[in-house]
Amino acid sequence: MERIPPGTDEVAPLRELGAVIDSIDFAAAGRWMHEFIRELYPICRSITGDGLRATLRAIAHQVPLEIREVPSGTSVFDWTVPKEWNIREAWVKDPSGRKVIDFARSNLQVVNYSVPVHTTMPLADLRSHLHTLPDRPDWIPYRTSYYRETWGFCLPHRELAELQEGDYEVLIDASLRDGALSYGELVLPGRRGEEILLSCHACHPSLANDNLSGIAVTTQLARLLTGIRREYTYRFLWIPGTIGAITWLALNEANASRVAHGLVVACVGDPGRFHYKKTRRGDATIDRAVVQALRDLGWDLEVRGFSPYGYDERQYGSPGFNLAVGSLTRTPHGRYPEYHTSADDLELVRGSALAESLRAYLEVFRILEEDRCYLNRNPKCEPQLGKRGLYRAIGGLADAGRQELAMLWVLNQSDGTHSLLEIAERSGLPFPAIVQAARTLRNHDLLEEAPRRGEA
Amino acid sequence: MERIPPGTDEVAPLRELGAVIDSIDFAAAGRWMHEFIRELYPICRSITGDGLRATLRAIAHQVPLEIREVPSGTSVFDWTVPKEWNIREAWVKDPSGRKVIDFARSNLQVVNYSVPVHTTMPLADLRSHLHTLPDRPDWIPYRTSYYRETWGFCLPHRELAELQEGDYEVLIDASLRDGALSYGELVLPGRRGEEILLSCHACHPSLANDNLSGIAVTTQLARLLTGIRREYTYRFLWIPGTIGAITWLALNEANASRVAHGLVVACVGDPGRFHYKKTRRGDATIDRAVVQALRDLGWDLEVRGFSPYGYDERQYGSPGFNLAVGSLTRTPHGRYPEYHTSADDLELVRGSALAESLRAYLEVFRILEEDRCYLNRNPKCEPQLGKRGLYRAIGGLADAGRQELAMLWVLNQSDGTHSLLEIAERSGLPFPAIVQAARTLRNHDLLEEAPRRGEA
Amino acid sequence: MERIPPGTDEVAPLRELGAVIDSIDFAAAGRWMHEFIRELYPICRSITGDGLRATLRAIAHQVPLEIREVPSGTSVFDWTVPKEWNIREAWVKDPSGRKVIDFARSNLQVVNYSVPVHTTMPLADLRSHLHTLPDRPDWIPYRTSYYRETWGFCLPHRELAELQEGDYEVLIDASLRDGALSYGELVLPGRRGEEILLSCHACHPSLANDNLSGIAVTTQLARLLTGIRREYTYRFLWIPGTIGAITWLALNEANASRVAHGLVVACVGDPGRFHYKKTRRGDATIDRAVVQALRDLGWDLEVRGFSPYGYDERQYGSPGFNLAVGSLTRTPHGRYPEYHTSADDLELVRGSALAESLRAYLEVFRILEEDRCYLNRNPKCEPQLGKRGLYRAIGGLADAGRQELAMLWVLNQSDGTHSLLEIAERSGLPFPAIVQAARTLRNHDLLEEAPRRGEA
Repeated sequence: MERIPPGTDEVAPLRELGAVIDSIDFAAAGRWMHEFIRELYPICRSITGDGLRATLRAIAHQVPLEIREVPSGTSVFDWTVPKEWNIREAWVKDPSGRKVIDFARSNLQVVNYSVPVHTTMPLADLRSHLHTLPDRPDWIPYRTSYYRETWGFCLPHRELAELQEGDYEVLIDASLRDGALSYGELVLPGRRGEEILLSCHACHPSLANDNLSGIAVTTQLARLLTGIRREYTYRFLWIPGTIGAITWLALNEANASRVAHGLVVACVGDPGRFHYKKTRRGDATIDRAVVQALRDLGWDLEVRGFSPYGYDERQYGSPGFNLAVGSLTRTPHGRYPEYHTSADDLELVRGSALAESLRAYLEVFRILEEDRCYLNRNPKCEPQLGKRGLYRAIGGLADAGRQELAMLWVLNQSDGTHSLLEIAERSGLPFPAIVQAARTLRNHDLLEEAPRRGEA
Repeated sequence: MERIPPGTDEVAPLRELGAVIDSIDFAAAGRWMHEFIRELYPICRSITGDGLRATLRAIAHQVPLEIREVPSGTSVFDWTVPKEWNIREAWVKDPSGRKVIDFARSNLQVVNYSVPVHTTMPLADLRSHLHTLPDRPDWIPYRTSYYRETWGFCLPHRELAELQEGDYEVLIDASLRDGALSYGELVLPGRRGEEILLSCHACHPSLANDNLSGIAVTTQLARLLTGIRREYTYRFLWIPGTIGAITWLALNEANASRVAHGLVVACVGDPGRFHYKKTRRGDATIDRAVVQALRDLGWDLEVRGFSPYGYDERQYGSPGFNLAVGSLTRTPHGRYPEYHTSADDLELVRGSALAESLRAYLEVFRILEEDRCYLNRNPKCEPQLGKRGLYRAIGGLADAGRQELAMLWVLNQSDGTHSLLEIAERSGLPFPAIVQAARTLRNHDLLEEAPRRGEA
Repeated sequence: MERIPPGTDEVAPLRELGAVIDSIDFAAAGRWMHEFIRELYPICRSITGDGLRATLRAIAHQVPLEIREVPSGTSVFDWTVPKEWNIREAWVKDPSGRKVIDFARSNLQVVNYSVPVHTTMPLADLRSHLHTLPDRPDWIPYRTSYYRETWGFCLPHRELAELQEGDYEVLIDASLRDGALSYGELVLPGRRGEEILLSCHACHPSLANDNLSGIAVTTQLARLLTGIRREYTYRFLWIPGTIGAITWLALNEANASRVAHGLVVACVGDPGRFHYKKTRRGDATIDRAVVQALRDLGWDLEVRGFSPYGYDERQYGSPGFNLAVGSLTRTPHGRYPEYHTSADDLELVRGSALAESLRAYLEVFRILEEDRCYLNRNPKCEPQLGKRGLYRAIGGLADAGRQELAMLWVLNQSDGTHSLLEIAERSGLPFPAIVQAARTLRNHDLLEEAPRRGEA
């Protein structure tokens, strides 16, 4: 596929993130992300194997990620990197020899990580290996069996109902052998060593919103962030769910605390409203930055508390790490009917929704990048803004202008304990207005940067 | 009366409280408690005297309490144990010689602690000694005069209105002499020295909900708790209101701080909804345990803040003690019309309501008994539950099962700072599900008990 | 004008504030304040000059304030005391020689601090110097240009529309010369050095609610507080807005921290409901005292958070001072249509509204004066109130009397950490009832004053 197109791609080096955001053609970016999802959709991904590798290579065609391979059998905390799974063919033939289930038709039709099998059995025996959704009779469910060696097939419930008694030939031409777990990692260094982590699971086969939408948005984000002047170091991970995050944490245990803020990216392509799941800490800067960003955009946001069920925030937020990693999604996992079924397809995800998600993430980063604590250099009474041309000449009007108000807020609160994000929250003014006010005041030597508080 | 009947009585020693709760025949327990109230109802109790002693002996017939006698004149903080009051007979005869008021008809008819009197006086003079309820003309009010030597009678307002002018003969054959204040105390030792205090005033005459319901429920609780493996030491007090609590605190001043959690038990027999009055601290463990217990039961609960008016939580919560003692009742004192009147009778209290109250208290104790802080022994990432048979084999379903979710919550929060009660609160899961999850995880060596935080 | 009349004026020395409040004829006080506003209304005030001085002298006729003069050119933090402005005459004549704008008609017609001018110009050129309110065509706006040397006129929009083309003669006979900034200061010493600051800007010309109402109420307050036994030292400032507060803070920098509580007084004469703007701290004692006072009065109050736009709380609440200064007003600045127009006149302000404002401020002071932390001298259990005659003799009633309840609250909470104000808040009882209870308990040696916590 084409690399990320002009308009989003051709970012001049070392531009400010705010300027980059303003220059993006979001409609084009949305179309590109949908096209990227279309390219990746047919690949049969799993938590290991060649489908995962092919996906990482497709991302690597867009951004310079490194593909890491961790051998099967490696101990990662309480877990072990599993054998590598690869599949070539899988089907079930009915007594007449017709393929009633076929991996070639949809890679969801085989239970992911099924062990090889080639046998013939009566329908009665086969049934315990078949998975359907009785209340969604036309959809194929997505099922896995990573950690118990078994095999199975998934099919529309309506088709199961039509199967005739008799002997069925079953083939799964798969292999489960020592190999490796693959993941992609991209680090964009910033002025600070502190990191913003973007973690995206990349182990689901033909499912568009979960998780191809996450892959598309993170790939776009990585490209855009490559060209900016970065305060933070950005770390992107495209990993298999659960075991991938555990593996990365095990291999990077000593440095994990460099992650100051993090987001798990998934389910960002449907047109549902935004949801944010807070970090385990519940009051981290990222928790507040997401709320502020969506408020500034004027977009609806539902905020939920942390829970230990979900995506890889479970691992990042385990008590031994307790990293400040939340998850910003559209409709969350398990709350849209198409979730983990064949209906999570190319129709469910929209370019416009992907573009909005991209925008939301960029606005969050803008806040993290630009958030600072300042010290008012004239803390006793207001400085005289008028003599610096920063205040209207004619007095008596009922309201202050918004920029004047923003400057007064920044001056009043900049005692070294309130960051710009906190000032935006307290004042009710948009974060960019507060940043602009701080910049103006700094240019007039009215502010200086305060010693930074620890973030991690 | 019969001792507590089989089914509630015959508890095998050292059973778990949870198992005991599951085995109780609450309907039978309710009937027994109502019967016990019926037995105690006719006795004329007061803050001292033989009626109180008879009541304590009736309780002692059920549970091995100790009856303590504190001599009149004993100084207890700012108070003095009063003279002992006993009454044999009291009546008022109208000019025709008919007994229009008679202690034999209802012991509420004489003002409790009235001094002896035998005289004749015109109705006009008598009136200042007569107490009625004009807006409840058929009910007799309950009135006392413990600390000022006077006498009086209580009667239905309708009967007062019918009295004719003329001379009335008045007799109160009572004695007010040096004696003792009696109270009952039962201590059930637990693994810890820390105590759960159950305090029940036992000084009201023929009033069923306030306070006989409390006597019945606490007696049942004492029997049931006798047979269980106890983490805490339980201390039951059946005492006269105010002066009894003050006396106990004065005699036990040095050890009062052993009370880690406490409840004042009264008004637990009417069918009104549950009310909880918080401890003076307002955020004590008992305050949260009561809320969680009623939530787990699915029963409505109104929670009110502490106030220094009410029952003996006033004394336990005085600033020099500040013990964590709340009060769990049905309709609180003063908020049902029958309160402190002859209508607080055997009809007002119901076996079913008493049984629910018993259940609620037991669920509170279950939480206190089972609440603990654990340490996740694999705090870095989730442990692999699947390889221990604790997680479903087939993945991809939209929701976690409740037990899996409970285990994930316990693992995630068990960093030594969150107790199981806090985990139940945060997760929204029932406390018993959280306890069960912790037990399972502990059996798999995934948890260990954390060093205990001080409770008192 | 007459001095403050009998009934408010004739306050015996060293009376308690509560007794003074009870003796005030508020209707008479309201009439006096309205009359004082009427006296001051015609004067052309500004941030410097003779109109300001005349106003201060009028106040000094009522209370013994000191008038201070700070020379033009004095550096006050980031600002400089400006030149003194005085004006004698100003008008615009139309081509026919008719005065279409005239300072003699309303001192709002000239832009305050206009530089002198005498010229003739076509209407087209004159327009840029004319200010109107198109959506309030009959009102004259109030405009200022303190810090940029320009000139201008204000007029009803309807009159502007009627002006004919042609040459207009313009005269502003004003002077802008080195002189002084004047302000008035009155200190009423109290038992403590800690101060209550009342700050009132006095720089607006013919505007009744903003700021003459503030001048009238503060003048009345100063008179009334002169005659009471004061716990706090009261400092009254009548100052030009912004530059006056900055000047005072610069001259009193070392002692500003003596201000324990403060209020900016303005917009207290309209009949709108009360508004309170919190201090920058947001949880200062004054913030809670105002809420309690209005609750005790049963008057509606809207509470808003601090913002750095408004009156001189901006300066007192700058980060280098962060004084606990809020602002109690009726309708706040900018939220009534007449604000900063000729419609803010003698009709807008009412004697009754001024009297209510006076009352509200006095109730706030009563709370500050009487607020204390006590120690219960019998902290273990309740003391026996009955033997001291402080508790009803006959027991059994459903409710405690309010005074009994107030005593129980004071005893229960007086552990040295809860002030009377906090006890009023927690109990829901009126502050005066709590004070009365504390007084009674103290008289019975049941309370002693706790070591005072720092206020500033």
